Amino acid sequence: MDYAKKALEAHKEWKGKIDIVSKPRLKDHDDLAIAYTPGVAAPCLEIEKDPMTSFDYTGRGNTIAVVSDGSAVLGLGNIGGLAGLPVMEGKCILFKEHGGVNAVPLVLNEQDPDKIVDIVAALEPSFGGINLEDIAAPNCFYIEKKLQERMNIPVFHDDQHGTACVVLSALINALRLVGKNKEDVQVVFSGAGAAGCAIADLLGQYGFKHIRMSDKAGVITAETAMNDKQKELAEKYNPENFTGNLADALKGADIFTGVSAGNLVDEEMIRSMNSDAIVFAMANPVPEIEPNKAKAAGARVVGTGRSDFANQINNVLVFPALFRGALDAGALRITEGMKLAACEALASLIEPEELRDDYVIVSALDPRVREAVSAAVAKCAKEEGCVRNA
Amino acid sequence: MDYAKKALEAHKEWKGKIDIVSKPRLKDHDDLAIAYTPGVAAPCLEIEKDPMTSFDYTGRGNTIAVVSDGSAVLGLGNIGGLAGLPVMEGKCILFKEHGGVNAVPLVLNEQDPDKIVDIVAALEPSFGGINLEDIAAPNCFYIEKKLQERMNIPVFHDDQHGTACVVLSALINALRLVGKNKEDVQVVFSGAGAAGCAIADLLGQYGFKHIRMSDKAGVITAETAMNDKQKELAEKYNPENFTGNLADALKGADIFTGVSAGNLVDEEMIRSMNSDAIVFAMANPVPEIEPNKAKAAGARVVGTGRSDFANQINNVLVFPALFRGALDAGALRITEGMKLAACEALASLIEPEELRDDYVIVSALDPRVREAVSAAVAKCAKEEGCVRNA
Repeated sequence: MDYAKKALEAHKEWKGKIDIVSKPRLKDHDDLAIAYTPGVAAPCLEIEKDPMTSFDYTGRGNTIAVVSDGSAVLGLGNIGGLAGLPVMEGKCILFKEHGGVNAVPLVLNEQDPDKIVDIVAALEPSFGGINLEDIAAPNCFYIEKKLQERMNIPVFHDDQHGTACVVLSALINALRLVGKNKEDVQVVFSGAGAAGCAIADLLGQYGFKHIRMSDKAGVITAETAMNDKQKELAEKYNPENFTGNLADALKGADIFTGVSAGNLVDEEMIRSMNSDAIVFAMANPVPEIEPNKAKAAGARVVGTGRSDFANQINNVLVFPALFRGALDAGALRITEGMKLAACEALASLIEPEELRDDYVIVSALDPRVREAVSAAVAKCAKEEGCVRNA
Repeated sequence: MDYAKKALEAHKEWKGKIDIVSKPRLKDHDDLAIAYTPGVAAPCLEIEKDPMTSFDYTGRGNTIAVVSDGSAVLGLGNIGGLAGLPVMEGKCILFKEHGGVNAVPLVLNEQDPDKIVDIVAALEPSFGGINLEDIAAPNCFYIEKKLQERMNIPVFHDDQHGTACVVLSALINALRLVGKNKEDVQVVFSGAGAAGCAIADLLGQYGFKHIRMSDKAGVITAETAMNDKQKELAEKYNPENFTGNLADALKGADIFTGVSAGNLVDEEMIRSMNSDAIVFAMANPVPEIEPNKAKAAGARVVGTGRSDFANQINNVLVFPALFRGALDAGALRITEGMKLAACEALASLIEPEELRDDYVIVSALDPRVREAVSAAVAKCAKEEGCVRNA
């Protein structure tokens, strides 16, 4: 199907993918007097007395902002906030349909990280959470960190952590299938931007020990790192200072994780990997290597970002249900524990006996995801005491 | 009815008065591929080429923000953005129900006017208009002016101009009824904040010549004015430098316009007015004088802000339909002409032979308002050429 043409037609017809509707009926003067003046003064005064009641008397507790400066939209690069709006609207409807979360797209004509921090922090009273989206590295690291320091609601950069959670979840199952241990396997990354760094970070948290990240210039060492995050990861997981290009790194490796660009990996490179190789080629729309080629070259488990191949690594498996759980629990932030709980819950939707090379992650439309992931996240938030009324 | 108690119960049940829904269906992978990746890249690229197509491919053209810092909420004063959120949600559902406009409540924990301007201006790509709400004078004047200079979408402070439009509309009909001319009548204000100043401004635009504004300290002259706006109004409409208190000003006056506080006007003051006096006592929830007292003291046309008395001066008669018309026309701003067009259209819903002392303004629930007012506003915007694709 020609998705581009279909999408243009559909977007023109929709004129916006979200609609705002009123919950109260407003049919007579009494309705107005309760939902608006004079009645509305009563909840205002309650919130003034106790700000936490804003979660009882307004929609804040189930409303998040999807915030973007449009500096790294899909594979399109820095097209700016306005041109990124169709993506943010799409994200918002996924939040609603897959998590029951009211999400508002907020695109900015501002790309200065400190100004973005000020803008988003000032909006805290309106929302119960902030989903940062399509903000380029390294600004995305800075913005997320500063906002997490300043705000008492979850702030989550989905391109980093949503992707990381789904990848880890699929890897948990893939390793289970091929019978290897996270501590032993060698992971090789192509792409060391926001998503690549976050995936590496989360794999490390989970217990992976050997991670080599590469970008266009080859494998990254503490010395060649372009920013603090890359340096930290290189120091931790490439202490032997392995150098070389992607092909060098892949020799004997167990896992390839691609978040870079199409067709960067050839069959020769796959053939050089260890047996039972796991290849997640997630560049969009063209993967680092076509799945059939990777399989033909000996890879055992292959995943991509695309819905027309097996094992789709799709963020929608995590972000709506993760926020659902965080909001349900009244979480103050998204902790590493909550992310790992989401990964485990998502992985466990496939029973050990159901695992197959082409089924290490459930479909993006699997209806069980929301309940399983949100419950695990909410449980973890409460156990950690990282909630409003702890 | 005990509106406070009912409102608390209802707000707790609603947990937010607005809901966000998806327009596209998202039932299979094709749906996802059209509304989200990879299809969504196509409208993004179109908007990058031509930013104006954002009004075709996104919901921007039918979405506004209701922005408040909570510095002057209802009659409650400076309770802050968070405590003002129930009011802003209420405003948003009125925008939808009475104008078909998607409105997003954005409350800020920031009251510095320059910072508010920066925040709102940065959000321009997300919206087709900005409704400022419950921001105290004189900051509201400054913020509105600066935003109008910086943004290419309508920016409208409803507490000023929405109120002003409804008052003028009711006055047009009231003068028609009592057979007096706008040029001849003496208007006296109690209250010279955001609303009072904006009403006086609009009456002046429309052709009223004699306007005396008063606050707690008495009638305002160019010398006693507290800010530039008051000074400008005093210079224009009180050039004789009339001084005295509200009672002094009302002697022989034709029209009383109250946007101040309850029970500031007594029967003696009404009795001192000219014959066929028009009294709009709009303080909420307690008017400057009870309507039955004003009538008993000889006032002919009496209006309040309340739905349980005749002639309710309710902003909802203007703001949703005014924005509806502005968005339909692709207006770049709300001009004086568009506001006056709204007033005339609203007034003309009552035929001359239908006019009565207790019917100079239609009900807030009159279903004809939306079409009449929005069409007049859109027509004016196009005639003035103040639209996107002029």
